[in-house]
Amino acid sequence: MTTVTIAILCGLLAVVYGIVTSQQVLRASAGNEKMQDIAAAIQEGAKAYLSRQYTTIAIVGVIVAIILAVTLGLTSTIGFVIGAILSGVAGFVGMSISVRANVRTAEAARGSLQGGLTMAFRSGAVTGMLVAGLGLLAISGFFWYLTGPGGHAPNDRVIVEALTALAFGASLISIFARLGGGIFTKAADVGADLVGKVEAGIPEDDPRNPAVIADNVGDNVGDCAGMAADLFETYVVTLGVTMVSIALLIRADAGELMKLMSLPLIVGGVCIITSVIGTYMVRLGGSGSIMGALYKGFGTSALLSVPAIYLATKMTLGDLNVPIGAPGFLDQASDALGGDLTDAAAAPAVTGVAFTGMDLFWCMMIGLVVTALIVWITEYYTGTNYRPVKSIARASETGHGTNVIQGLAVSLEATALPTLVIVIAVIAAYKLAGIIGIAFGATSMLALAGMVVALDAYGPVTDNAGGIAEMAGLPDDVRHKTDALDAVGNTTKAVTKGYAIGSAGLAALVLFGAYTTDLQTYFPDTQVDFSLSNPYVIVGLLLGALLPYLFGAFGMTAVGRAAGSVVEEVREQFRNNPGIMEGTSRPNYGRTVDLVTRAAIREMIIPSLLPVLSPILVYFIVSGVENQAAGFAALGAMLLGVIVSGLFVALSMTSGGGAWDNAKKYIEDGHYGGKGSEAHKAAVTGDTVGDPYKDTAGPAVNPMIKITNIVALLLLAALAGHVAG
Amino acid sequence: MTTVTIAILCGLLAVVYGIVTSQQVLRASAGNEKMQDIAAAIQEGAKAYLSRQYTTIAIVGVIVAIILAVTLGLTSTIGFVIGAILSGVAGFVGMSISVRANVRTAEAARGSLQGGLTMAFRSGAVTGMLVAGLGLLAISGFFWYLTGPGGHAPNDRVIVEALTALAFGASLISIFARLGGGIFTKAADVGADLVGKVEAGIPEDDPRNPAVIADNVGDNVGDCAGMAADLFETYVVTLGVTMVSIALLIRADAGELMKLMSLPLIVGGVCIITSVIGTYMVRLGGSGSIMGALYKGFGTSALLSVPAIYLATKMTLGDLNVPIGAPGFLDQASDALGGDLTDAAAAPAVTGVAFTGMDLFWCMMIGLVVTALIVWITEYYTGTNYRPVKSIARASETGHGTNVIQGLAVSLEATALPTLVIVIAVIAAYKLAGIIGIAFGATSMLALAGMVVALDAYGPVTDNAGGIAEMAGLPDDVRHKTDALDAVGNTTKAVTKGYAIGSAGLAALVLFGAYTTDLQTYFPDTQVDFSLSNPYVIVGLLLGALLPYLFGAFGMTAVGRAAGSVVEEVREQFRNNPGIMEGTSRPNYGRTVDLVTRAAIREMIIPSLLPVLSPILVYFIVSGVENQAAGFAALGAMLLGVIVSGLFVALSMTSGGGAWDNAKKYIEDGHYGGKGSEAHKAAVTGDTVGDPYKDTAGPAVNPMIKITNIVALLLLAALAGHVAG
Repeated sequence: MTTVTIAILCGLLAVVYGIVTSQQVLRASAGNEKMQDIAAAIQEGAKAYLSRQYTTIAIVGVIVAIILAVTLGLTSTIGFVIGAILSGVAGFVGMSISVRANVRTAEAARGSLQGGLTMAFRSGAVTGMLVAGLGLLAISGFFWYLTGPGGHAPNDRVIVEALTALAFGASLISIFARLGGGIFTKAADVGADLVGKVEAGIPEDDPRNPAVIADNVGDNVGDCAGMAADLFETYVVTLGVTMVSIALLIRADAGELMKLMSLPLIVGGVCIITSVIGTYMVRLGGSGSIMGALYKGFGTSALLSVPAIYLATKMTLGDLNVPIGAPGFLDQASDALGGDLTDAAAAPAVTGVAFTGMDLFWCMMIGLVVTALIVWITEYYTGTNYRPVKSIARASETGHGTNVIQGLAVSLEATALPTLVIVIAVIAAYKLAGIIGIAFGATSMLALAGMVVALDAYGPVTDNAGGIAEMAGLPDDVRHKTDALDAVGNTTKAVTKGYAIGSAGLAALVLFGAYTTDLQTYFPDTQVDFSLSNPYVIVGLLLGALLPYLFGAFGMTAVGRAAGSVVEEVREQFRNNPGIMEGTSRPNYGRTVDLVTRAAIREMIIPSLLPVLSPILVYFIVSGVENQAAGFAALGAMLLGVIVSGLFVALSMTSGGGAWDNAKKYIEDGHYGGKGSEAHKAAVTGDTVGDPYKDTAGPAVNPMIKITNIVALLLLAALAGHVAG
Repeated sequence: MTTVTIAILCGLLAVVYGIVTSQQVLRASAGNEKMQDIAAAIQEGAKAYLSRQYTTIAIVGVIVAIILAVTLGLTSTIGFVIGAILSGVAGFVGMSISVRANVRTAEAARGSLQGGLTMAFRSGAVTGMLVAGLGLLAISGFFWYLTGPGGHAPNDRVIVEALTALAFGASLISIFARLGGGIFTKAADVGADLVGKVEAGIPEDDPRNPAVIADNVGDNVGDCAGMAADLFETYVVTLGVTMVSIALLIRADAGELMKLMSLPLIVGGVCIITSVIGTYMVRLGGSGSIMGALYKGFGTSALLSVPAIYLATKMTLGDLNVPIGAPGFLDQASDALGGDLTDAAAAPAVTGVAFTGMDLFWCMMIGLVVTALIVWITEYYTGTNYRPVKSIARASETGHGTNVIQGLAVSLEATALPTLVIVIAVIAAYKLAGIIGIAFGATSMLALAGMVVALDAYGPVTDNAGGIAEMAGLPDDVRHKTDALDAVGNTTKAVTKGYAIGSAGLAALVLFGAYTTDLQTYFPDTQVDFSLSNPYVIVGLLLGALLPYLFGAFGMTAVGRAAGSVVEEVREQFRNNPGIMEGTSRPNYGRTVDLVTRAAIREMIIPSLLPVLSPILVYFIVSGVENQAAGFAALGAMLLGVIVSGLFVALSMTSGGGAWDNAKKYIEDGHYGGKGSEAHKAAVTGDTVGDPYKDTAGPAVNPMIKITNIVALLLLAALAGHVAG
């Protein structure tokens, strides 16, 4: 049995785990009739939204597929379609289990906190394992087919392009899903809060609020389906680009290359097993700490991954102390890795490109450490026990303005430690094994994706469960339990986003390495100057850095505008049907869901196309103004500009948003006057501001960065085809 | 008479204009006794703060001067001291005239709007002309001395380092002044608003508010003295680095070099004359538009500058169509400008380094166009007549949260057009005359500094005049007139900041060019790889990009914390002395001023040292971990990282803050319910958030960028000295 086959089996195991666990979830009681009614409305709305969203994306997808078929051929197009479809499936299945687990979690929480936790977490684990499992199946299955029945050598250009196209399919769907879902969920959330809590003075999740179902639908289509598509994309891109960079950079015989290229797959595979084991360790201890229970699961997976990765590496590569690659690798690699594409001697700062299997193992350990540190840093910045959240809560005492000022200060500050961690990881991994080392660091980060997504996807389920408990009039203690589960969800949601963007920070250099190598392959006669003294490099950096800002502006504006329409729609319902507020007549939930659906679909299109079209425009404009070499230089610099700026925009938005949300919860726990106090009102403002920050604009920056990079890679291939043809 | 002498005379003319105009201002009536009392309290507070601030800065300055004397010798130290002292003088004189013009503006506004406008603008013009005049005197006088009595060749290393040290002195003072003043003004403003308007329900500038004098002091020490020091710095650094890059990059005989190096000085000189003429054109037309009156002055200066710059260039260089520089310049320049320091052929994207005087003239026209476009874009994003501000005002209707969301969306979006303008200007100027072309573009932008600062410094005077009118109980129509003058001030303040940071965007490449050339001069044997594929370049970019975020976090936190202490202090005064609210006893204004003074001084120190120490740390750590070449690469990349990220942070903060402020004013003008409505309350929150954004963190990013760059240049010189010794 080959390594790739084992990886495929591990992917299948994840899918089996998903099916079995889904059935466990579905077997549980769905509560009384009222609860089921509410859940059915949420299900219906979520399904309706996702169908509309995927139909719209499909139109874009078909157009892109046709362009790919014409420019890059059939194999790449198939890769693109696989990536796109499975990304959609991951989101859809995640949503499907989530809208069924919500009501069952509310019901289970009537029994015990542990019951609610188990139900919500199992549902999250289904999504998590499917994201990792489908991601692994997509790459390893496609790779198996191409190198087996397809008859291609592992470093054949066809494989490089097909894997890139697969990643592109996943990314393109995920940016639409992340952004569309993000706009939906926050427009509904902000709109419902403004018109319900603030204007009408009714509590959150009050069934009299016509936007309340839309708000709950949003949790499922944004925080669950959108997030799942995003992490699927991150998984596929990271493993894919690791394999691509091995194919591009390492000069070895086919057997050696095959081993090395299947290493990311088997590492992904064994970590699915350790993640599955981890999911069974999520249990409340004596302290009753929910975060502690989740950490137990995460810690188990992470610790078991150390020996698992070691054994997988050993099994795949054999002797871990033998230098990797045939003679000549070093020249080739330093040639490709070192800045100057024409003269290896001009790249004196590049070192450490000769490496062993053991070096790769240590690089993967760096990835695990980075993941752990990002989890820890995110908890520090968004948890209610630490200075940042407390400082925002304290600032709420002096009003709305100081709450927001302190929240912005925290969001800016929260970028520092993750950046330092990434910088140190880049240097350490690079010293061990060059760019390939950085790629493996990113791979091992993503190998734990199943577990990380499980922790995240648990959040919207508990959020929904609380809403259902409120709307169905369940006893207060049920709501208390779901609230306790939900508070932890704010931190785990922030963790996933920090983790995804952190891995993008590591992967950026790998993607840029792939770009420069491809450039050398396709355009050997074009000498591109990537030096910082080249003004076109500066131009590229500035334009790249602009993208996350412009994208963020679009996202924030979209949420503001859509939330405004929700407010108007709800006001109209209240005006035309006074029975709603009296509780004698049912609001038209469907009309609000439909309104938000249309708004989200409309608003997601232009910003999602920004990262697709910008690299193409920059290349052609600069090439036209100056020459092709300048065009390539500006394009390459744009790729790094978008990560250098995107990393900070995304980290600040996701951490800041999480901190604002938990500062509100901290006050609701009875500090600074508790619920209803002036401080609480200020904290609600901060929470509202943080909503589109953390759930719309911030997280969508991650797929945006990837798309910009992948489009650049595909553009090179297409231009080369054009030049050759 | 040499060109340099003429420049010196123009500098003196500006000083004479300042003295004459000051006397005109001082001759005007200072109003009744009550007004004079209030003005005296503001004067006293401002003087007390600035003395404390300059004392503290002096300690840091003396330490730095000693370090410079040891590492770089006496001439550089003298340059540093001149830059530092004149930067301080520009701020101090600006503040001194401002605290005297405020009460006279209030008095003049009793007569007519034109009277108030003339008085406030004249005072602003004094500050503006002194900033430009002292800046020009500093560089041209020092350059004259060094090349004349000092006997140095114009491209002697001594001159390069002395001019760099002069810029460093100006920058170091200005970051302290910008940040300290910014913290003072916003802590007092936010604190006074929170405890007065929000808690006690008394109007802005009510004399019963113990923080009201501190608030008015803040306008003078932050928006006037801090701003003046900042623009002085920008002026000196831009002209200085243009001269330095000519000295470094152009191989010509001393006479040719002398001509070329004095061109920025004479351009600065003639533009002082056109600015002086422009100041006399600021008059209300038939429409009564205040912005129109200011534009008349600005437009006159800008238009007159076109022939003035042409004549100055023609007079200095002679035939404008002869290629500049001796034979061999091209090799040298392409060698120094092209990325690879060892092989000119490896820099194929670099073109257009052969240029004529006419090319330089066109580059300077580009600078004027950039200035005009930035003024226009800033007015679009911060003026009450356009979509962005109106969208924030409309979003205020649905609450505090949506106001802030829309404000953040506008702040993110506002970065796009200025970035595109800068990118196009960089490409155009570079194609005309390489890096020297970009440098001259930045120079002509700054040549108009006198006029731009005049427009800005007028703002705090009218703001203060309104406060004095309120406190002295002048008739309502006086306050209406000062309010109308003040509203325009919000836009002109935003313009100056966009202009300063925009010029920094242009100057960044020039500074980086100086860095790479210095590197080649001092360390000819160290081959530094500035390619984007070098991981230490990525590390440097990321760490550089982090600086504005961390700096912003410090600034925002400082304002929040200091404003909190103001709230507590005022609450205590109200509690211990109930007569204050009844109007029977006078609050202790001095104690609040003293509190804010101490807080601002304490909070400014660590963030101001961040850009001084970071480049040094990065160089030594990376050199230790890898090698010296990697250290230089990371340091160089850090310089660009800080501008790539700082440009966006600063533009978004300053435009967003201005938009929030004017959205409030737009509502106060009677839209969406006007003063006292719920929308107005939400708009006040947005204004509070925007305060530290636009007046503390955002503008201080500009000197921060310069300091990082200049410290790197001085570090190279110091290291070379160390190596040589």
